[in-house]
Amino acid sequence: MSKDYVHGYSDEESNRLLDQANTLADLLHEGTKYSAGSKAPENQRFLRILEAGCGVGAQTIRLAKSSPDAKIISIDISEDSIKQAKSLVEQNGFSNVEFQRADILNLPFKDETFDHIFVCFVLEHLKDPITALESLRRVLKKGGSITVIEGDHGSCYFYPETEESVKAWECLIECQEGLGCNPMIGREIYPLLKNSGFENIQVSPKIVYVDSSKPDLVEGFNKKTIIAMVEGVKEQAVSSGMMDIESWEKGIGDLYKTTGPDGVFFYNFFKGIGTK
Amino acid sequence: MSKDYVHGYSDEESNRLLDQANTLADLLHEGTKYSAGSKAPENQRFLRILEAGCGVGAQTIRLAKSSPDAKIISIDISEDSIKQAKSLVEQNGFSNVEFQRADILNLPFKDETFDHIFVCFVLEHLKDPITALESLRRVLKKGGSITVIEGDHGSCYFYPETEESVKAWECLIECQEGLGCNPMIGREIYPLLKNSGFENIQVSPKIVYVDSSKPDLVEGFNKKTIIAMVEGVKEQAVSSGMMDIESWEKGIGDLYKTTGPDGVFFYNFFKGIGTK
Repeated sequence: MSKDYVHGYSDEESNRLLDQANTLADLLHEGTKYSAGSKAPENQRFLRILEAGCGVGAQTIRLAKSSPDAKIISIDISEDSIKQAKSLVEQNGFSNVEFQRADILNLPFKDETFDHIFVCFVLEHLKDPITALESLRRVLKKGGSITVIEGDHGSCYFYPETEESVKAWECLIECQEGLGCNPMIGREIYPLLKNSGFENIQVSPKIVYVDSSKPDLVEGFNKKTIIAMVEGVKEQAVSSGMMDIESWEKGIGDLYKTTGPDGVFFYNFFKGIGTK
Repeated sequence: MSKDYVHGYSDEESNRLLDQANTLADLLHEGTKYSAGSKAPENQRFLRILEAGCGVGAQTIRLAKSSPDAKIISIDISEDSIKQAKSLVEQNGFSNVEFQRADILNLPFKDETFDHIFVCFVLEHLKDPITALESLRRVLKKGGSITVIEGDHGSCYFYPETEESVKAWECLIECQEGLGCNPMIGREIYPLLKNSGFENIQVSPKIVYVDSSKPDLVEGFNKKTIIAMVEGVKEQAVSSGMMDIESWEKGIGDLYKTTGPDGVFFYNFFKGIGTK
């Protein structure tokens, strides 16, 4: 387990990740459904799906639900995350997931083991995403597919914007970059998939546009996902001198103005699919 | 005719605006179709549509095509633009458009004259868009709708990005702001429509995501729309000292890298609809 993981491992943080997953699940998982189809031979009835980097299981339960006929193997580098993910999957009554602690760069699977691979909010944390994708490609069957989902913090803008609210957002980016992450990796999914050998690549942006006509998203996305994430780097931002405490507090207050009647918030994720 | 119009009035510029309109037309005009429907009373057979700020007619011909049963009144502040728009509409064989020189802030129409109003790439040029929208609302019938389309230059990002390419893009924004424009107005459509009295407002982002799997968009959008637009402010950017000529040339060269095999480009427009 790496202490450097940008989102930390606290219970509060796990709850935020679950809230985020619920709010965004429909958007991100739209179309992600793995099924062998009626014409599949008997021994192909259960597709083997690898979820690489399952974290606390936020996406796992969606995968388990949307692909009930698939056998899902979910791996993560953190034993603690796997425990939480396992417990979440059990609470939700799914029996089609197996968990295993494993490193994406050193996968304990034979070549061409999986029919599909699902990687969500993982590549942003890796220092060498191409090597990771090549490693994943090794264990993918010929003709199998990979699905990659990532955010892009450079896609984010809002109304009203102030110097301090923009700066607070930039602190989040800087803190994540300081941990070796790439919070702007979303835009790179196409070249990353291409340069790691995948074919038939299709990348589509998944848009979150929020104005006050959508109170659920104001609550679930602006407040509980975005602003909560920015607030999570307060200590680092202030103690490292990126912002003084007064500007920080004003920045957070200004971010909350985007949740008011005139407020607007825009962010986009990217979802890429490729085949081997 | 105002010489301050940010896009200028040269033939080359008119061609760029038409190229842009063709590339983006399907995206922006999707769903914009005005029809009285089969149950409309006889005297309602011809809907009256106001296109406010028709420019050289790039959107007019799309409107004329998609709403053949409507009577379209297209106005613009520039007599020259109207001439070009008229000629374009005639070349394309449409007879359902009437042109009139008029100022949005001082409309020569009675209250509640129009069934629908269409405003595309216009509000960004106005110093007081709320007053303009209120003026338009006056001539809209009760129950009628307004459609507003605008870009947002703050939504734009690309890969690869360099200091110089980002700076060149910022020069475009700065030049437009210097002329009193608001190139980031797209995100404000919701509050603008709300604060000028419209109801049932629905705003949706219209996304342009381009990677090298889409060569038509690389050509029509990245090169002919975006980079051409940036190149249009070269003289202002360099003569005003925003960038020196070497950095400028590097910035443009780097923007062209977004059109290469690993390049990615993202921009979004906003389309808002409201009723009276």
